[in-house]
Order: sequence, then structure tokens, then C-alpha cells
Amino acid sequence: MANVLVHTPRSFARRTVSGVRVGSFVRINNRFSVDFEYPVYFTDDFFSSVPDIVSMLFSSHDGLRRRAAVFVDSGLAKADPDLCERIRSIFSGRDSKIGLACEIAVVRGGPEAKRSESVFSKIISVLSKASLDRQEFVVAVGGGSVLDAVGFAASMIHRGLRIIRFPSTVLSQCDAGVGVKNGLDRFGQKNFLGTFSPPFAVVNDTKLLSTLPEAELRSGFSEAVKVAVIKDGQFFARMENLAPRLCSGDMPAVREALETCAAIHLRQITSGGDPFEFGTARPLDFGHWAAHRLEILSDGRISHGFAVAAGIALDSVYANLSGMLSDNDTARITNLLRALKLPLWYPEMEIKETNGEFSLLKGVDDFRNHLGGRLNVTLPVSIGHAVEIHEMETAKIKAALSRVREVCS
Amino acid sequence: MANVLVHTPRSFARRTVSGVRVGSFVRINNRFSVDFEYPVYFTDDFFSSVPDIVSMLFSSHDGLRRRAAVFVDSGLAKADPDLCERIRSIFSGRDSKIGLACEIAVVRGGPEAKRSESVFSKIISVLSKASLDRQEFVVAVGGGSVLDAVGFAASMIHRGLRIIRFPSTVLSQCDAGVGVKNGLDRFGQKNFLGTFSPPFAVVNDTKLLSTLPEAELRSGFSEAVKVAVIKDGQFFARMENLAPRLCSGDMPAVREALETCAAIHLRQITSGGDPFEFGTARPLDFGHWAAHRLEILSDGRISHGFAVAAGIALDSVYANLSGMLSDNDTARITNLLRALKLPLWYPEMEIKETNGEFSLLKGVDDFRNHLGGRLNVTLPVSIGHAVEIHEMETAKIKAALSRVREVCS
Repeated sequence: MANVLVHTPRSFARRTVSGVRVGSFVRINNRFSVDFEYPVYFTDDFFSSVPDIVSMLFSSHDGLRRRAAVFVDSGLAKADPDLCERIRSIFSGRDSKIGLACEIAVVRGGPEAKRSESVFSKIISVLSKASLDRQEFVVAVGGGSVLDAVGFAASMIHRGLRIIRFPSTVLSQCDAGVGVKNGLDRFGQKNFLGTFSPPFAVVNDTKLLSTLPEAELRSGFSEAVKVAVIKDGQFFARMENLAPRLCSGDMPAVREALETCAAIHLRQITSGGDPFEFGTARPLDFGHWAAHRLEILSDGRISHGFAVAAGIALDSVYANLSGMLSDNDTARITNLLRALKLPLWYPEMEIKETNGEFSLLKGVDDFRNHLGGRLNVTLPVSIGHAVEIHEMETAKIKAALSRVREVCS
Repeated sequence: MANVLVHTPRSFARRTVSGVRVGSFVRINNRFSVDFEYPVYFTDDFFSSVPDIVSMLFSSHDGLRRRAAVFVDSGLAKADPDLCERIRSIFSGRDSKIGLACEIAVVRGGPEAKRSESVFSKIISVLSKASLDRQEFVVAVGGGSVLDAVGFAASMIHRGLRIIRFPSTVLSQCDAGVGVKNGLDRFGQKNFLGTFSPPFAVVNDTKLLSTLPEAELRSGFSEAVKVAVIKDGQFFARMENLAPRLCSGDMPAVREALETCAAIHLRQITSGGDPFEFGTARPLDFGHWAAHRLEILSDGRISHGFAVAAGIALDSVYANLSGMLSDNDTARITNLLRALKLPLWYPEMEIKETNGEFSLLKGVDDFRNHLGGRLNVTLPVSIGHAVEIHEMETAKIKAALSRVREVCS
């Protein structure tokens, strides 16, 4: 590309638009930043809140009255029959600047929320009838799957309505529910469709956790262990202390773990340098190549939280076998997971392909392909610190599998 | 909200995450920026380009081979029967780092591309079979509607594939094709669905314009007149000089107008302060409230480019009647539009509602509602300068309508 001439017509003069000309070939470069900001609130019972906290949530710069379309997870609506009434009361204030745009819509919860075409069509249909404008609100109350489906719909209507999420599981309150992604499963692939779309606000309300089955509550702590291992040794030590209280569903302990975990997750988004994942690094996906594969191999019987716990154990032992992580730190990780009553081993981890190879190993290829040809796996080097590696050895994964099975028996 | 205590656990310590605590109510604020950058190329015949220009377009940081799924507008494929073969040749280089992921897909062009459920399903289906990862490419060659439909699909698969647009109309090369939006028409609303999703690159190739019908070519210049009136008096004067050559389809003149218009459009995105339109200002929507309404009232017979010309004339005369724009500047605007053989008046502009009111006026309400309750209309105060107003007087719009009709007869 010899003889590149700088092309500077008047219209290219601004700092952010620069051009080059090569013969008849001209290039203008466009560079810009988009600023995002959203609050994550932690509270113990939002839907009994005083009006000024509600107003703060639905703040509008111009004082105009706005409306909200509200979606509630069917599992939550069933477990807490008064919930919809409590939500309605929030919007019924006489002088309120916020009102309901339509009846509260109950959305089928659990994995089907992301898989089913009819669930998604219903969400879009409710939103089209609500006729919201881009300054109005979509409120989603539920588990990660409902938040993902409603969030995806909201992100594409008028190129993005204002979504406020109320995650109702430990898993979503400390991880995906506070992040910038949404998604639907299609064509047999998790999150085949989705967008990066920061919420308008997130409210982590422990009251919404009170009806969670005990196992589902515990399973969410795997994501807290995950960020503690790779990002924060002090939080890891605190989790070791909190484990018995977390297991018994002690809400102050749960809330402490949630606040810290969510804050670390958010710090990764705000300070990690790649909030919309243009590059191939996925620091928060520690333990996830095996977890995703295990969810598929178990046909969803092993839920995400449980699968992540097993994935963390496997990759920690792999790091130990690679000489990266000390025996002591490895034992602390597996012991914390076990103290949280999270199984580290499942028979599905040794399902074999017709060629005799463990089917779990395909998870490494899936992960590599998903990232665009270059593998990026995060492994801990000590409690609170991690590195990225770009290759995993099959023999060593198998050895780690054996070791994890031993630890568990 | 008395007694607000700053909440500073260790995990809030980073600059970008700050927290407050009010009783049991805690707020963490998350603020971050996402950097976007994309080139817009101008060329006279890309698909006969030398290999290094092709490599530059599909550049990859890691040297790995990537694939592209290519979509071509059916109108273009019909008008230029060799086009698909020329596109194929670009990807057939032996040492090329870029190859076709699947057969080139021809997509129905024109407004149906954005309206039809089956067209969109076909695009998604082609892309699911192509199994692209997030570092691979979607190439869309066509008019604005095809670019919008393919772009919307690409923006949601794996939360965003890399799309390269080849706009094939004057309208899309100087306006939407170089911007950051896509969209589908649903539930009777233009762009009811869509995302803000900057392309990986845009190639404005004048060769693709060579088969355009003469009226369609001319209609695209309305967007050039639009940005000239509100942003750039020097470009407006140049357009006055170029008008006869533009009308006769003189390609060097067309390309000059395109380059300047696209650069001004891009400058608004990069330096306008609100690329994803979180606020309610829409400076590039000058003339568009009437244009959108006119497209609906004519059931699409008046295409976007022609409708925008009529909208510009109407709002310029409105500005003149409001004492904002001089008689001389107003005449220059209507004269330039007429020199480009763009009609300023259509019988559809005086269609009446059952209550006797002009149906066109509903466009102001639609525009206000779309923006979230507050009207923002851009009006010129001189050639090259504009202001935002927040109310339009019905009587004055009617007077402007009469005046425009007079000018045209």
C-alpha cells in the first residue's frame, strides 16, 4: 500500500473522523465511545418500599409520567402468590410518576423461557400492545432465564426500552442478572441469539430469594466461589467462614455474599476493558467449558450453578496438575465447594463417545469455536489470582477427572 | 433520603464502581464506556479490487483464516447478473485468509425485506447453518432494507457477528448504510424492532449504483440536501453547483456528494455526543416527521428519499413562516430540491381525517410519541445551521403546506 495520501476535505476535519486516499480508494475511520451507567440496588423487600425509593428507581429527567410493562416468572408467582399484588401496589400511588402500561404478564420460568418460541412471541406481543416509548420501562422479575428472554425482547423494541431487572435467584443476583448480556437458546445452542444491552437498573431483593428451594439457593454460590477464586482472596476467605450460614439460608450471610460477588462481577465489566466482549478473553468464564458441556450431557438435569461447581473443581485440579496451583489452594477450593454441598462429580462427566473418548472433552472444542478459533481458558494460580491459557492437554484433563472423582468418594 | 452513608467495602474500591447505603438499602453505580471504531471505504469497483484491499477489509488480528456469509439484494442480483460471480471471485484466492462460509444467499430486496417474517427467517436460517463464530463475517450487499434486515440478524447471533455493508443505493450510501442502526418493520410500525450495532466496515462502491433507475438515484440526494442544510453551508453551495451533473448520473459528481454527505453523517455519530440515541434529540431527522407520515399515507408509493425531500421543503417553509429562516435561504433550499427534480408536493399531503383535519399532522404526534413524550424537531435558521424546537403550531404547518403547494405550481 505505497503512496498513501492523507485525504483531508473539510468534512474530515474533526478529530474523530480521519481519512486516507489510495488512488480512487478512500477510507474514513470512525471512532466513538458510548457511555453506559446503571445502578445495582440491594434491598431486603423492595415491593414494600417507601415511595421515594420507588421514585428513585424510575427516575425521569423531565418529570413526565412514564409507564412500565411488568413480567413475572411463573415459578415465582406460584411460590409467592401475593407477589403480583405487591408489585401492583408499587405502581398505584396517586401522585406517582410511574404507572402500569398493562396487566402484569406471567412468563413461564426455567430453561423453557429461553428455549420456547411461544414464550418469546408472547413477550413481544405484550410489549407491542403496551406501546411503550424509548423512555419507558420494562420490569422483569424472575430467574436468569426469564430475565434473559424479557431482556432480549426489551433490547430490540424501538432499539432498546429501559429494562429494570429483579433477579429472583442467587445465581442471577450475583452473576448474569447484574451484567450486560441477554440471550435465547436456538438451533440447539445456548445463547445463539442475544445482545449486549446494559439494563437501566437492577434490584437485588433478598425477599425474592425466600421461596427458593434449598438446593437451588446453594447452587448459586458456585458463581460466588468462581469470582472469589480468580479475583479476590479476601472474599474467598470470607466465603469459607460464611459457608455454614449460606447452606442454612441465613439471609444476612446470603446478602453479604451477594453484594460482594455482584460488586466483583460489576468491577470486571466496568474495569475489565472489554464489556461487550469484542476480544476473545473471557475471565469470568472460569470453569465454564466443562459446565456448559455438562449441562448439555445431562440434558439440563444438572443446572448451571451445579455444573459450574463441578467445572471449577475440574479446572482447579487441572491447574494443580499443571504445577500452576498449590496443593493447599486446590484443597481449599474443593473444600469450600463441598462445604456448600455442591457435588464436584457426576457420572455424566465420563459418558463416552463411540470412539471411546470422554464426551466432556468436546467442551474444549465448543469453547474454542465459540471464541473464534483461539482458546482462552482462565485458570487460578493462587486463591484470588488467575491467568489465561490457550491450550489444554487431553491427558491432563483425564487425570484431573480421575482426581476429582477420588476427592468425591 | 437523609443519612446517606458511603458504603465502601473493599470490592467497591475501584474508581468505576461506587456505592451508597441508606439503612438496608445499598446502591452500587456502574459506569463504563465502550469504544467503537469502523472504517467507511469509498471505491469505484470493489469486486474487481486487488487482493490487498480485500485483505485490508477482512483484516484479522491473529492471522487465522475466517469465513463470511454473503447476502445480496434480489433487485441488485437481477440488474447485475454477474455480481454474484464477481463476489465469489473475491473469496476464491488460494492464499486468502477469507473464504465463503456458504453459498451466496439472494434476499428479497425493497421494503418487503424489512416487513416479511419469512425473509428474516431465511436470513437467520442461512446464518445458523453457516456456523460463524463472533470473529467471522456477514457481508450484506444491497439497498437500505436488505442492509437493515441482514444487519439486525447479524447483530443478534452470538450477540453480534461482524457485519460488512455494501450499500447499493445513493440513499443508503450517504445515510443509513454508513450509520449504527438496523431495524425491521413489525406491528405496522417502521423499525419496531432493531438494535444499535456499529458495522465492522462499510464499503461505498459507486459501481453498485450503476444499475439504479434514474429516479431512485436522484431520490437519495434528499438526504445529502438534508445534512447540507442543517450542518454545512459550503457543502450546500457545492450541491447547488453539482445538481445538473447529479441529475444526469455523472459518477464523479455522485461520488463527491456521497463522500461529503457520508462524512457529515459520520461526524454526527462520532462527535454528536449521543450515538445510541439515549436522549430525545434527533438532529439528523430534519424533515422526517412529515416524511415518515407521507410514506404511510401513500402506502409506500412515495419512497423514503422522495418523502424526505417534501419534508425538508415543508419544514424549511415552516421555519421561514416562523421568522427563523430568511426568504432567500428558504428559496435556495426549495430551488436545490427542484434542481434535483425532487417533487415538494403530493396530493397525499392534504388527505383529510374524518374530523376534517389533515392526516399529515398526525406525523407530529407520532414523532413526539416515538421520542418519549417530548417533541424535538430540527429546523434550519440559515443554510448550514439549525436549532431544535419543541412545539409546532398546527395553523403554521397548514400555512406552510399551502405555500409549498404554491411554490410547486
